[in-house]
Amino acid sequence: MSANAQKQVAAHRPSLPQILIVDAVRAALLEDLGRAGDLTTNATLPEEARARAVLSSREDGVICGVDFARAAFAAIDPAISFQALVGDGERVSPGQHVATVEGNARAILSAERVGLNFLMHLSGIATHTARFAALIAHTKARVCDTRKTIPGMRAFAKYAVKCGGGSNHRFGLDDAILIKDNHIAVAGGVAKAILAARAYAGHLVKIEVEVDGLEQMQQALDVGADVILLDNMGPELLEKAVEINAGRAKLEASGRIDFETIKAVAETGVDYISTSKITMAAPTLDIGLDIELR
Amino acid sequence: MSANAQKQVAAHRPSLPQILIVDAVRAALLEDLGRAGDLTTNATLPEEARARAVLSSREDGVICGVDFARAAFAAIDPAISFQALVGDGERVSPGQHVATVEGNARAILSAERVGLNFLMHLSGIATHTARFAALIAHTKARVCDTRKTIPGMRAFAKYAVKCGGGSNHRFGLDDAILIKDNHIAVAGGVAKAILAARAYAGHLVKIEVEVDGLEQMQQALDVGADVILLDNMGPELLEKAVEINAGRAKLEASGRIDFETIKAVAETGVDYISTSKITMAAPTLDIGLDIELR
Amino acid sequence: MSANAQKQVAAHRPSLPQILIVDAVRAALLEDLGRAGDLTTNATLPEEARARAVLSSREDGVICGVDFARAAFAAIDPAISFQALVGDGERVSPGQHVATVEGNARAILSAERVGLNFLMHLSGIATHTARFAALIAHTKARVCDTRKTIPGMRAFAKYAVKCGGGSNHRFGLDDAILIKDNHIAVAGGVAKAILAARAYAGHLVKIEVEVDGLEQMQQALDVGADVILLDNMGPELLEKAVEINAGRAKLEASGRIDFETIKAVAETGVDYISTSKITMAAPTLDIGLDIELR
Amino acid sequence: MSANAQKQVAAHRPSLPQILIVDAVRAALLEDLGRAGDLTTNATLPEEARARAVLSSREDGVICGVDFARAAFAAIDPAISFQALVGDGERVSPGQHVATVEGNARAILSAERVGLNFLMHLSGIATHTARFAALIAHTKARVCDTRKTIPGMRAFAKYAVKCGGGSNHRFGLDDAILIKDNHIAVAGGVAKAILAARAYAGHLVKIEVEVDGLEQMQQALDVGADVILLDNMGPELLEKAVEINAGRAKLEASGRIDFETIKAVAETGVDYISTSKITMAAPTLDIGLDIELR
Amino acid sequence: MSANAQKQVAAHRPSLPQILIVDAVRAALLEDLGRAGDLTTNATLPEEARARAVLSSREDGVICGVDFARAAFAAIDPAISFQALVGDGERVSPGQHVATVEGNARAILSAERVGLNFLMHLSGIATHTARFAALIAHTKARVCDTRKTIPGMRAFAKYAVKCGGGSNHRFGLDDAILIKDNHIAVAGGVAKAILAARAYAGHLVKIEVEVDGLEQMQQALDVGADVILLDNMGPELLEKAVEINAGRAKLEASGRIDFETIKAVAETGVDYISTSKITMAAPTLDIGLDIELR
Amino acid sequence: MSANAQKQVAAHRPSLPQILIVDAVRAALLEDLGRAGDLTTNATLPEEARARAVLSSREDGVICGVDFARAAFAAIDPAISFQALVGDGERVSPGQHVATVEGNARAILSAERVGLNFLMHLSGIATHTARFAALIAHTKARVCDTRKTIPGMRAFAKYAVKCGGGSNHRFGLDDAILIKDNHIAVAGGVAKAILAARAYAGHLVKIEVEVDGLEQMQQALDVGADVILLDNMGPELLEKAVEINAGRAKLEASGRIDFETIKAVAETGVDYISTSKITMAAPTLDIGLDIELR
Repeated sequence: MSANAQKQVAAHRPSLPQILIVDAVRAALLEDLGRAGDLTTNATLPEEARARAVLSSREDGVICGVDFARAAFAAIDPAISFQALVGDGERVSPGQHVATVEGNARAILSAERVGLNFLMHLSGIATHTARFAALIAHTKARVCDTRKTIPGMRAFAKYAVKCGGGSNHRFGLDDAILIKDNHIAVAGGVAKAILAARAYAGHLVKIEVEVDGLEQMQQALDVGADVILLDNMGPELLEKAVEINAGRAKLEASGRIDFETIKAVAETGVDYISTSKITMAAPTLDIGLDIELR
Repeated sequence: MSANAQKQVAAHRPSLPQILIVDAVRAALLEDLGRAGDLTTNATLPEEARARAVLSSREDGVICGVDFARAAFAAIDPAISFQALVGDGERVSPGQHVATVEGNARAILSAERVGLNFLMHLSGIATHTARFAALIAHTKARVCDTRKTIPGMRAFAKYAVKCGGGSNHRFGLDDAILIKDNHIAVAGGVAKAILAARAYAGHLVKIEVEVDGLEQMQQALDVGADVILLDNMGPELLEKAVEINAGRAKLEASGRIDFETIKAVAETGVDYISTSKITMAAPTLDIGLDIELR
Repeated sequence: MSANAQKQVAAHRPSLPQILIVDAVRAALLEDLGRAGDLTTNATLPEEARARAVLSSREDGVICGVDFARAAFAAIDPAISFQALVGDGERVSPGQHVATVEGNARAILSAERVGLNFLMHLSGIATHTARFAALIAHTKARVCDTRKTIPGMRAFAKYAVKCGGGSNHRFGLDDAILIKDNHIAVAGGVAKAILAARAYAGHLVKIEVEVDGLEQMQQALDVGADVILLDNMGPELLEKAVEINAGRAKLEASGRIDFETIKAVAETGVDYISTSKITMAAPTLDIGLDIELR
Repeated sequence: MSANAQKQVAAHRPSLPQILIVDAVRAALLEDLGRAGDLTTNATLPEEARARAVLSSREDGVICGVDFARAAFAAIDPAISFQALVGDGERVSPGQHVATVEGNARAILSAERVGLNFLMHLSGIATHTARFAALIAHTKARVCDTRKTIPGMRAFAKYAVKCGGGSNHRFGLDDAILIKDNHIAVAGGVAKAILAARAYAGHLVKIEVEVDGLEQMQQALDVGADVILLDNMGPELLEKAVEINAGRAKLEASGRIDFETIKAVAETGVDYISTSKITMAAPTLDIGLDIELR
Repeated sequence: MSANAQKQVAAHRPSLPQILIVDAVRAALLEDLGRAGDLTTNATLPEEARARAVLSSREDGVICGVDFARAAFAAIDPAISFQALVGDGERVSPGQHVATVEGNARAILSAERVGLNFLMHLSGIATHTARFAALIAHTKARVCDTRKTIPGMRAFAKYAVKCGGGSNHRFGLDDAILIKDNHIAVAGGVAKAILAARAYAGHLVKIEVEVDGLEQMQQALDVGADVILLDNMGPELLEKAVEINAGRAKLEASGRIDFETIKAVAETGVDYISTSKITMAAPTLDIGLDIELR
Repeated sequence: MSANAQKQVAAHRPSLPQILIVDAVRAALLEDLGRAGDLTTNATLPEEARARAVLSSREDGVICGVDFARAAFAAIDPAISFQALVGDGERVSPGQHVATVEGNARAILSAERVGLNFLMHLSGIATHTARFAALIAHTKARVCDTRKTIPGMRAFAKYAVKCGGGSNHRFGLDDAILIKDNHIAVAGGVAKAILAARAYAGHLVKIEVEVDGLEQMQQALDVGADVILLDNMGPELLEKAVEINAGRAKLEASGRIDFETIKAVAETGVDYISTSKITMAAPTLDIGLDIELR
């Protein structure tokens, strides 16, 4: 396949099973409501009070997690009406409305924090990813995530990465193989490790191997590795790797990736640049809820 | 990589996280013990009675699930001693001892059924798989499973397939892509569907496409499909497909596979032959527990 | 009560709590969707695509599990319309439509496998049971299940047995007493074991005892066992047992029951014939989904 | 079987699967520890402080739930040593030691309340049951429970009833049949309802029917009901029922049972007297923990 | 704030998150339905039968748990219509209707017991609490609960206490600090224990300390305890404590509180009187369901 | 109590129930292991391989989460020996060893990522908090958290805040009252809202109110608010608030808190400074595992 053909195909918008969203939101609500529920709201608002609220961004960023917010309000009161004004993956500017909520006032206030916590955290990841992605948009390289994610948020963090324009690495230990130095050492070399992996795993499992230099890379290419991880290599070495590879394996660079370094890495011609920064060090996007009681 | 190099590498024995086994066994015990526990045993055996039991196969077959049996006894009484005499993936003949159990008699009897249900069902899958595998051992083809598995048993059924000498297809909708006729129709053709899949999924996800004939197969090869599924094609067509493929994609045959048909399919040179028979129609392997009370 | 009176009463159709179905289907969907959901469908179908699908049987058989299929589609998208054309327990012939589904195309494809896996597995059990039942329809004997069921499927497998025209043995260790040889040995004889069981269990628990011959059977009758299990006895011995019993206890035969042997066993006049074959060795009923996208 | 033979058989001590106990205790600890754990103890006691504690009864009563207390301490700290001095079902007098606990002081204090809550509640049920049982010990009647139990405590409450010398009615809607007036009305009479029940349920399910008088009772006997529930009948009517029954069905009386009325009911010759008082209105047995820090 | 100002503020009705109710009801239904569901109802009532039922109190009391009953019927059949006629916290007299239910007859009968078990148990707590509250209504004292609650019912029991006119003590070990004798002993005195607690806990955590006499009370006041627990002190000592306190801390009395003693305790001027009797020894309120089938 | 007395009391080290840690770690392992477990490790390392590993920090920081790492290894293999060299809340410098692990090599590699993900994330929070705390160490103010936490991590994030030298705000909606502008508006003013809160909540619940200026603050003081939240006020206004308050309520400042602004805010004399930055925008602390296989 020519790279051209691929480029002409725009990927569908990322999608996440609603069933996962609903479960995660329920757990978060239980965490926040505790044993007695929202004491403050129940004490001060009449049961029948109604309200209209607007969720709006306080910053520039990329939105992710609208369905989590929707699910939070729905879990407290299915009668609440929730209207999304921005879709996941879309950019917002300060003051821009993200969604409106209308219904029972107590329910809106009780669900607010959980809805916003998801929305702010996931939008934070999407926004951080988008910043990295923008820096390398002129290259064919894509920024991608790792398995360094906050426990319990793996699927959602990776969804947010896609919403931010990044790409996903494997989701767990079981859906792809990534052979590292220790595996290589015990297996008796790059080639033997890859062969062992292929003998063990099914034919729908890709095999990636982390190499320490061009010699190991050559061994990996010789036995047909699908992806080669080039960790902590400088631009010059990466360029050589790209040249040697000649399009055979996908090449992934990693190590000390930040806003300063990523451009040079991307311009070497690698296919992917992975960094845990987008999932483990993304500040939240500040999103607020302004409510008007009726 | 040469096929030779790969063949020299024996795969490690299949392995399953103990944490999954323990959870499944607990659920099965709760299902069997209900609200009141083992009425019969508690009514007729003294609390302090001790026993020694032997699990033995009543048939020829391949054992799978020994750790499930161990976990069943341990969940009821951690003090029970369990000694495996046969490992998962090993063949047994009628009367052969699979494991011995020693300890509190009530605990052994209360855990017996759950332990055996796992062991018999999984050994049944392994044995059935092994029969298919034996029929094609002279070819390079390997029998593999599908997503047609009994709900709740996906991971365990696929482990049993490996224990029986088979290979695993994808484990769910999320770890690999398998494009079928409807996806192709909506996407606007084989090539477009594959490009859409590649644009959507990460670089550690393999892409398989089911084709309806050699023309679609050629389109799939042109855009670099990883695996091509040839469904319900006769041996002659399969042979042609193998020839055209020339080792580029992995080829998987499926459809009407049984003990009569599998040999001819394998001899066409395809790489994998998938069938739901090994997970959805495998009779149990009969394994019994003989107990001696003390 | 006269057997005549009983015969005139047709049992209601089997019924299963929806709450159990919904939970099992959710778990199965989570198993299949994994962390990232249906990559293939989300990559290739537009979000808004709609479809109409038909579930139809590829074989003769007895349907069981329609509500599981309905629940699978509903769990992914509550807006999907599902129309059952065949009820659980009804016979189908090849090509016969079982249900139609209409709604969001992605949702239909993502739920398809889980819905079918339940439907095919449970219909397989119902069909297998019906075959046994047909062979003994001319006798008063009924085929019934055991506690040999695939872990996690106990309640559903037993429901399928009823749908196939079979009858249910106990559901777990806690809802009835079944005294076997080891219990008898430790308790000091058949009579003592039964008395111990009656002293231990409540008055709404039936007591069954497995006997090794007519002498033990007589002891069981003397102390009023509710059900007597005659394991691995030939037709002649069974006939004698029926004669001696004279309608006092229910008689259940078991051991080496298959399509060849069951008729002779049933004709001895026993009330129940139990076999694990119907739950542990039933091949699935092949049911497919044909979808038309719009 | 003669009633004599049965009387000579002492029932084994009640038994409950440890797996159920451990799960219930974990849930109760999570309920009590909340999100931040035992603030008071962690703030005031040093981590390494050790203590010895004694659980002792403040009242006369029957103990039930010792293993729950043991499990509570073990769940917080497996290294804690717990020594039971009284077994479930045994009587205690005020001041009598029930168990001793030794180990980490924080762990003992953090687990204390949950351990005691189970022990006090279940001992309360056992004690209350024992009081009823003592009043009818001179008759063959036994006091038994109902399905009126505090949600989540069904299995444990019924275990406590047995520890107090009572007997268990059915554990749920699924393990026995109890036909009441509405079922009779819809089914078209007592006999038809029983026949419908027998046609629907398996042969290991007992059938009880609640009758409104002697006429319905006769109908129930005619079709072989296993148990007949005589609700809200006075002693004279009950005596007549006992006479008519002549030992065929088990007879169970219920309705307005209390410490004043139970004796007269029991002396009518019925087999069982059921009351929800023992599970829904039993005051706790006061049990305290005295701790000595080291 | 003046006590007057506070008195003029009527508290809102107690409120409980629906999400907690739904979960608890589901668990209770699973406990009651077991593996096979409601055998009796499914055997005797036609699937399509419809019914109308009335829940009515058989006694004077205070209702609590209406939403649990509603949730029980809804969980079995969302189409059931449930009409509450009495709200939680309202008084009922014998024969008074609490709610009406209309819909599928099987569903109503299958959910009845679980709905009533919650309603009867929680109304029992509310009613018992109301009796205590009535005895001290002429004082400023309020009866409150403790952590002695039936496992799994903590949040619900405390809600019922509020419905009965009582007040809530802490909900767990984590939401407030209660320093008892052992904590004091290890910490080196009342003052040191309070300071340690304040240093450990956040600024939104109240600190209560149990004192053994006026001297310890003075120490607690000196370091600013929020609440002082006066355990097992007679009215005279309590009066002195009230005088010394002079409104600084909240005063809570406990120990040997019953219908006879509570008045005298309340009249000493303490703010709260805590007793486990309202949650651990409240008999159920008898509530029945009368059903009319159609 | 004098501030002096309080200052002399060093708080105990933060503590978290092990039961919460174990559950969270299990869930994270299931998330990472998926359905098939660690393919790479199982394919390349022999089952019996043993290893020794060292966890060491790559940065300056404050460690938090050592017991999570321990639990991760223990959950995969209880036989692994884990030796903590640094306790939660202790500072580390680059290269410093945090813990050593020894045992089965596969188990160490399979658990590594989950253990590190917790350790790195929580240490990140602790480290970030410590930086804020250091900037205000010369004042009496303490930095504290909010309810803006990543879903599922509430208890752990707050524990990490304490390990970093911060203090905890409320843990959920149910353990303290925080009245905000909307509550005030609906309730009819600051005083009315506080009185409503006090009437609704129990006496062990603290009441905080967010005020928009000195006038509202005075109203809050008049009715005895426990804590007053001063949002987005400049240092001058805060100083005035401190003066007016005169030690009556605890004063908490919030809004636009960062490394630049916190010092000036703290020096106004407020008691607490709350910020979501410490839980929602803390970069991870980089901690690695170096393994030596044997």
